[in-house]
Amino acid sequence: MNKIEEFQILLFQKKINCYIIPTSDFHQSEYVSDYFKGREYLSNFTGSAGTLVVTQNDARIWVDGRYFIQAEKQLPKNIHLMKMGTKGFPTIDEYLKSILNDGDTLAFDGRCLSASFVNNLINTINKKINIIDEIDLLNEMWTDRPMLPATPIFMLETFFSGESYQSKIERIREQMNLNKAANYLLTSLEDQAWLYNLRSNDVLYTPVFLAYTLITKNDTILYLDPKKLTPEIHNYLKENKVVVKPYFDIYETIKNVSGKTIMDLSKVNYTLYHSFTNKDDIINIQNPTLLMKAIKNDTEIANIKLAHIKDGVAVTKFMYYLKNNIGKQDLTEISVSNYLQSLREEQKGFVELSFNTICAYKENAAMMHYSANELSNAKLEPNGFLLVDSGGHYLEGTTDITRTFALGELTDTMKLHFTTVLQSVINLASAKFLKGIRGINLDILARGPIWNLGIDYKCGTGHGVGYLLSVHEGPNGFRYQIVPERNDSAILEPGMITTDEPGIYLEGQYGIRTENELLCVKDESTEFGDFLSFETITYAPIDLDAIDPTILTKAQKDWLNNYHKQVFEKISPYLSPEEVEWLKKYTREI
Amino acid sequence: MNKIEEFQILLFQKKINCYIIPTSDFHQSEYVSDYFKGREYLSNFTGSAGTLVVTQNDARIWVDGRYFIQAEKQLPKNIHLMKMGTKGFPTIDEYLKSILNDGDTLAFDGRCLSASFVNNLINTINKKINIIDEIDLLNEMWTDRPMLPATPIFMLETFFSGESYQSKIERIREQMNLNKAANYLLTSLEDQAWLYNLRSNDVLYTPVFLAYTLITKNDTILYLDPKKLTPEIHNYLKENKVVVKPYFDIYETIKNVSGKTIMDLSKVNYTLYHSFTNKDDIINIQNPTLLMKAIKNDTEIANIKLAHIKDGVAVTKFMYYLKNNIGKQDLTEISVSNYLQSLREEQKGFVELSFNTICAYKENAAMMHYSANELSNAKLEPNGFLLVDSGGHYLEGTTDITRTFALGELTDTMKLHFTTVLQSVINLASAKFLKGIRGINLDILARGPIWNLGIDYKCGTGHGVGYLLSVHEGPNGFRYQIVPERNDSAILEPGMITTDEPGIYLEGQYGIRTENELLCVKDESTEFGDFLSFETITYAPIDLDAIDPTILTKAQKDWLNNYHKQVFEKISPYLSPEEVEWLKKYTREI
Repeated sequence: MNKIEEFQILLFQKKINCYIIPTSDFHQSEYVSDYFKGREYLSNFTGSAGTLVVTQNDARIWVDGRYFIQAEKQLPKNIHLMKMGTKGFPTIDEYLKSILNDGDTLAFDGRCLSASFVNNLINTINKKINIIDEIDLLNEMWTDRPMLPATPIFMLETFFSGESYQSKIERIREQMNLNKAANYLLTSLEDQAWLYNLRSNDVLYTPVFLAYTLITKNDTILYLDPKKLTPEIHNYLKENKVVVKPYFDIYETIKNVSGKTIMDLSKVNYTLYHSFTNKDDIINIQNPTLLMKAIKNDTEIANIKLAHIKDGVAVTKFMYYLKNNIGKQDLTEISVSNYLQSLREEQKGFVELSFNTICAYKENAAMMHYSANELSNAKLEPNGFLLVDSGGHYLEGTTDITRTFALGELTDTMKLHFTTVLQSVINLASAKFLKGIRGINLDILARGPIWNLGIDYKCGTGHGVGYLLSVHEGPNGFRYQIVPERNDSAILEPGMITTDEPGIYLEGQYGIRTENELLCVKDESTEFGDFLSFETITYAPIDLDAIDPTILTKAQKDWLNNYHKQVFEKISPYLSPEEVEWLKKYTREI
Repeated sequence: MNKIEEFQILLFQKKINCYIIPTSDFHQSEYVSDYFKGREYLSNFTGSAGTLVVTQNDARIWVDGRYFIQAEKQLPKNIHLMKMGTKGFPTIDEYLKSILNDGDTLAFDGRCLSASFVNNLINTINKKINIIDEIDLLNEMWTDRPMLPATPIFMLETFFSGESYQSKIERIREQMNLNKAANYLLTSLEDQAWLYNLRSNDVLYTPVFLAYTLITKNDTILYLDPKKLTPEIHNYLKENKVVVKPYFDIYETIKNVSGKTIMDLSKVNYTLYHSFTNKDDIINIQNPTLLMKAIKNDTEIANIKLAHIKDGVAVTKFMYYLKNNIGKQDLTEISVSNYLQSLREEQKGFVELSFNTICAYKENAAMMHYSANELSNAKLEPNGFLLVDSGGHYLEGTTDITRTFALGELTDTMKLHFTTVLQSVINLASAKFLKGIRGINLDILARGPIWNLGIDYKCGTGHGVGYLLSVHEGPNGFRYQIVPERNDSAILEPGMITTDEPGIYLEGQYGIRTENELLCVKDESTEFGDFLSFETITYAPIDLDAIDPTILTKAQKDWLNNYHKQVFEKISPYLSPEEVEWLKKYTREI
């Protein structure tokens, strides 16, 4: 009997018709601590997003385009794969509407679903069903479930963060006044870490800590496990007049909060929303902290550029290692991933990886978010492409970079595809645009050259990047459709950092992605308006072995030559003489 | 005493605090018959859009970016110009909210404002004001007001329209069923002309007729002035079981219509909306006819291509005339406009111009929608740019083309600007994209090259084009922001025709615009999806005298050479031997 069958017996015993298991924690985080990995526990699917819906005689999981191939490989036979955004597959709402009847019971742990998700669901289903939102059915069968994390909190000094807690809370209270709000319930972990200039290790790859914050006109109350506070942090919070209460107390407090209250219902969980008495008092707007956090200040920007040099040194040394050892040593996806990690760990200020390195050889790279395991671990040979998407958290900021390396001879088509992806990267990076523009307006610059080949990548072109926080953050991004639940189509503003990562993925053959980070900066102001543009802040060679220069326009060639010149200037001071000689070749003018 | 002062005395006498005079007729048409030109009568401003608001001691007019320069020239001193979309200028709603107090009276002719405009206005003002919507104050002072038009109606045979009335009404009733609607109130003139395959001349440049249509489950009732019906059309309507009633009867009928009723409140006027009893029965969706009309059928497409050849012949002959007579004959903006019109009139199937020709020399062309009059009429000399934006209605369809001609030597900057505009035209025309894309996604392709110079054009990049109907029609268009009231950001579909008309406008210097029409067509379908692209269907030389070929990429040069090859092939059969020789030179490979 597999886990799903076991779970279905539980449903039968509890008289529950349908149960939803999302990927999230109590804070709508993208990456979650092991305690919350119930969806993976039940389904074996390890992707970072996906929602499992189990009934007494059926189980299906909704997965987005990044993970179609991976999910097909990992799922047991009795879980149907629902390809989101693909013709013929209903949405979760539509599916639940079709299977639930009046009197049926739908259950879930309401702390793991956003209020807006559940509200929409209830609206769509539009039947007299019973909702049980305070039941965590996983607890009943998951005997070796990991504990809730309680790692110590550490401080991010102002010379890293660039702005004190006091200054941030003042700006937040200005926003509360503008919205005529008496309270602000903030539950997003990244936003709280940003607000307090505090970090921790509760979640792998995201240096946040489990907490809730209630901000009133005069008080700030922080709900967290007090075990996490060192004496230093305890004093820091006290000095700043932040009141600390136990983590789960928020669920009692919220019942008695009154007055207009800002709650971003796409982030606040359903149980908290449900417990707030006067729904008319909810001001459901995007967390005001989200935009403040996304627009990096000058100190953060200066630091982030340093972080990218450190990260670029690691990636450049990695490329040197690959190019010089392929075909000579036994290399595998996992062994070179580990080597790359060791190069990052050598860098001063390194905290941890910013996500699980994607190191994918040949056809493995066609799975956009492939993660090598002992079974899949491919041996690297002196031919084909190796795609490496990786990043680090440093005290100076967070990085996210993808390079695809030619490990040997390539066909003309492979070079065409690699060079086309490069054209896409360059076209977006070169954009100059009036203030008011969103990612949806610019996406075609990256996607166009690839669409011209009749190829598409089934994901956005880029995402915002946090500062020693989540490697994926809103509200900025590049995508051609507005996807409300992703909230990544904000107007681009100077100080925002967004990745530029188009790709070509051919199932069973190979995957190519080149990813740089773009800092949005002020460009000229003329009588026609204020123009913005991008500064590329990722520094590592783009493999010249894979480029067909005859395809590039003169402007694209100039961009590439200028980029490689910068890479050489910024990275070479940190390399050995042999590496410098090699880098000269790999950043040469073409 | 000028007209505004006279009007303000009327307001005082009638105890009206504020009166709104829009540009529209009773059908929210863009171009209106003279009877409806009250805004122009009071303000002297002749632009095609603009809303005048008069209080007892103030008058101001809201005008969009196309008309800022023109309005400044035409307005009397006691009308303030409100530049829409410009920092520092409130919207009409905001302005009215700020000046109106509880108890004040706001008046307008509710037949000339859309229901959604007035509803939004009332919501925004949010005060206890009196609304008078059935008063046409213009009548009180406009003694020589033109009559309502009553031109005869003519038939557009099926070999032009490609689809019978019966087929269209069946498709409409399918849409009514899908929306569970018992009735459909259709007031848009273009949509009614399309539905019945009938045309007339009630409105200059738009071959429509004033009418309302009420479609019920079984009946179609057409409200119009019966004088407009020839015996032939009378019989045609009878055969098709269309009931004809007098034009103004709709205002009585609507009071008694019951059941779910489709009304596009952005098109249905406020008085009709106001008279409909049960507001809960209104299904406020975009007119289902709008999308049907925008997606041209195969017959229409084949005809439209013929219309563009005829039109291209006229424009090519015009260019030949200009190039060979400039500096030799006395030419003015108006004289060459008239000559161009005579060339169009020579074409078989020509009905009328599709809009007032913009023929603008040098700095006059910096006004995007300049129209020459006896005072402004510039003499053409053998130097500088002449911008000519013109089009025709033919039985085979409607055209809209802009060419900017070098009348003599140009500076390097002028050539740079002309060539950049050409790059913009080409980049958009060359787009290949997945189904699902909208104009907002593609606009950057045209705007990007111009933005790179720190220049912007303050209007959309392109608009839909009707078939022997309005030269501007939705729901397709190219623009970088969604402007709900323009409704031109629909998903692009095969069969839609949209103009591609970026430009550079330098106040006091010159204006450059190149405009082609793009037919959206199916491109390849691959495992990655169904791709669409554009076919350029406008055929006339783009002035090689103004192009700096060194700026163009190879792909752009290929596009231009291929385009000119097509122009020669399609147009030369209709030219004189001298013109053919000349055209060879002006369509040569570069």
